Amino acid sequence: MIARLGLGFCASEMGSIWRTTRALCSPHHSSRIGRLRMSTQELLKVDIINEKQGVGEICMQKSPVNSLDRAMLAGLVDSISRLERDGCRALLITSGVRGIFSAGLNLLDLYDQQKEDLLQYWGMVQEMFLRLYGTSMLTVACITGAAPAAGCLISTSCDYRLMLDQPKTVIGLNESLVGLPVPDWMRMNFCDVVGRRQTDLALQMGLLFPARDALRIGLVDQVADSPEQLREAALQRVAQFLKVPDEGRVPSKRISTEPLLSYLSGRRQKDAELFVTSLSQESVQAVMGKYLEALRNKKA
Amino acid sequence: MIARLGLGFCASEMGSIWRTTRALCSPHHSSRIGRLRMSTQELLKVDIINEKQGVGEICMQKSPVNSLDRAMLAGLVDSISRLERDGCRALLITSGVRGIFSAGLNLLDLYDQQKEDLLQYWGMVQEMFLRLYGTSMLTVACITGAAPAAGCLISTSCDYRLMLDQPKTVIGLNESLVGLPVPDWMRMNFCDVVGRRQTDLALQMGLLFPARDALRIGLVDQVADSPEQLREAALQRVAQFLKVPDEGRVPSKRISTEPLLSYLSGRRQKDAELFVTSLSQESVQAVMGKYLEALRNKKA
Amino acid sequence: MIARLGLGFCASEMGSIWRTTRALCSPHHSSRIGRLRMSTQELLKVDIINEKQGVGEICMQKSPVNSLDRAMLAGLVDSISRLERDGCRALLITSGVRGIFSAGLNLLDLYDQQKEDLLQYWGMVQEMFLRLYGTSMLTVACITGAAPAAGCLISTSCDYRLMLDQPKTVIGLNESLVGLPVPDWMRMNFCDVVGRRQTDLALQMGLLFPARDALRIGLVDQVADSPEQLREAALQRVAQFLKVPDEGRVPSKRISTEPLLSYLSGRRQKDAELFVTSLSQESVQAVMGKYLEALRNKKA
Repeated sequence: MIARLGLGFCASEMGSIWRTTRALCSPHHSSRIGRLRMSTQELLKVDIINEKQGVGEICMQKSPVNSLDRAMLAGLVDSISRLERDGCRALLITSGVRGIFSAGLNLLDLYDQQKEDLLQYWGMVQEMFLRLYGTSMLTVACITGAAPAAGCLISTSCDYRLMLDQPKTVIGLNESLVGLPVPDWMRMNFCDVVGRRQTDLALQMGLLFPARDALRIGLVDQVADSPEQLREAALQRVAQFLKVPDEGRVPSKRISTEPLLSYLSGRRQKDAELFVTSLSQESVQAVMGKYLEALRNKKA
Repeated sequence: MIARLGLGFCASEMGSIWRTTRALCSPHHSSRIGRLRMSTQELLKVDIINEKQGVGEICMQKSPVNSLDRAMLAGLVDSISRLERDGCRALLITSGVRGIFSAGLNLLDLYDQQKEDLLQYWGMVQEMFLRLYGTSMLTVACITGAAPAAGCLISTSCDYRLMLDQPKTVIGLNESLVGLPVPDWMRMNFCDVVGRRQTDLALQMGLLFPARDALRIGLVDQVADSPEQLREAALQRVAQFLKVPDEGRVPSKRISTEPLLSYLSGRRQKDAELFVTSLSQESVQAVMGKYLEALRNKKA
Repeated sequence: MIARLGLGFCASEMGSIWRTTRALCSPHHSSRIGRLRMSTQELLKVDIINEKQGVGEICMQKSPVNSLDRAMLAGLVDSISRLERDGCRALLITSGVRGIFSAGLNLLDLYDQQKEDLLQYWGMVQEMFLRLYGTSMLTVACITGAAPAAGCLISTSCDYRLMLDQPKTVIGLNESLVGLPVPDWMRMNFCDVVGRRQTDLALQMGLLFPARDALRIGLVDQVADSPEQLREAALQRVAQFLKVPDEGRVPSKRISTEPLLSYLSGRRQKDAELFVTSLSQESVQAVMGKYLEALRNKKA
């Protein structure tokens, strides 16, 4: 599975990306909160799992690796907004794909693209982060599978992280392996979780951490031996967090998140330009091209 | 005892606060350094415990929970100044109350008060912090009992912390539990000790840590099994610190404390306004009102 | 050996310093990269140890304690530049002196000197740091012996640190013991490695850490039981780092080092003035004088 993930950038759904995007804009509801139905698949399952406590869940279930293409990014933003409007106080981010949390950004959206498309795609990545990291809801990542690159970003954007202790389930910002530097705000977000030294080491080496190592450096807060145990632990932790009245919890969260939210909000265009410039380097595109070809050969 | 502490804000000495304040301004001395005699009780016992090394001690002994009312705050400021004038190089902060280090701010000074009174009280809290955190003396907190909220602040304002490993002796900034956000400078001071991640988690959840957990996250530096062992360890550590000549030790301390001292000194009025605004929210006052009533019923 | 190191400032090569400096400016080469031949001794042995991977090594071998006098500082700067020009991607800093990595700055360059000489010497210390910390090469410190004061600085300026676990091999910024505050940029560099709390404690107390303690607080990344094991582990780690393409590794390093490089580059003159002022205090010079005399008596 990890072999298929490769560098944390996913290219497994070649084609069929754009079909689903439009669908997102007018989703059909199948429950109170509704589910975001995509053309032929459900990318995200969104539910309120505890009405009394106000706990919502966004389950990523986009086979094979929950890659963050435009449809997924827009779906995440939309789902967060809807759960907030519905008065949720907490949000669980989970995965419905076995062995995968999210493989991160979609390589096909990054390889051999026009600059305008790249800028737009990156804007959606920023938006997803700003909405998830910036929500007043308590956010808990249930990392039941691999979470490289932007899969790690989703995790570190949450207030709490639980991770399944099983082979091949790893987490980290491994962008440097494909020749891409991690954008500064993504680095800051990671650094706020594990501290400066581990950030330097992990990002320079492109390290992916198994659950026990992730726990040791503080990249996750808790590990579990089975998905069931993980979910139960997550719900217990949510209940514990929600005992704190929102008058205390929400400002405590805001004082923590505000600096990075302000920083990125104030330089979205500049950040996008920087990223696209890094990405467009011939050497980087060459690494990606090779990687995509390897994937195609593997499938053939 | 912890039950009586409740949320780390103390309201156990209803009445009798103002009587003592004036006394503080003209204290009677009973030893070289003198003791601050309050109308009917001694709030603080101040002594030089090692003339040769220049080690002073401030022992908080205001039953039942060393709450930080105006008299205690003024007494702490005054005692620090006097020990400095007397040439002390080190200061032990201890408690003479069994099971309690300090329960923090006095709830009666925060509940249902006029804005002017709140601003003045908060100014005294700031002043106590600036004097304790800003002193050139080596400061060591001997945490022999519970240290919630501002009891934790006193501890983290010191250079070194030892904590008694016994049931009910906990430490932490649990303000969010009463719907109050921790002021930014208090958060920064806590963060300098335990780091960003533990700060986020502890403040959002209002966590109180037993000694072993406090040691694990770095909130205290050493634990002891008995008050006697703790005191002996503290004195050993003081002697070790004082082997460093003040030419090296004092600038090393100042380079560490100066940024936060400057920050708060430059915005005391603004900080006070912010705190009073948070505090005056109906929802916060309501939580406090309920808590005070519960305390009264318990006593009756 | 440690007794001879004393406070991490070295004064063991009284005389014979200036003879070697000129030699440095026109070094003779004895291999492709060349060796910096000093008048009568080789201060530094510089080699490419793996042509294929592009791994260079600078071995400090200035008996008895690798003190950083002008010749050593200039030699380090020069060696780094030459390895860069030669296309090296990685650099090992090692010691050829048994039991010593580097004892740090040369006390004779700090004691009883003219202000202009002190300013010039300090400028060379800054330059060495800026070049070592600022290089794009992956840098690995092989700490096979004591590394107090600027010996620690050299270590923390590298990307990775391995340390020999043996008696008397310690590391730390112990400047406060001679009454000298650690300059702010040196403190920042240390803090980026071990975090704020350990920095406060270590610098105020002038702590020197044995290998296991250094590992525990994150001051080194790995320990080894013998010099051979250490070297093997270092080379393995270098190979692992170098699997990351420079397109990803170098910007990941630069985003980490750039703030401190900019900070110090922008205030070299001011920093030097501050240091010289601290150093010139009578009390500090007095401590040094006593220390030098003790050394002389020991030799006699």
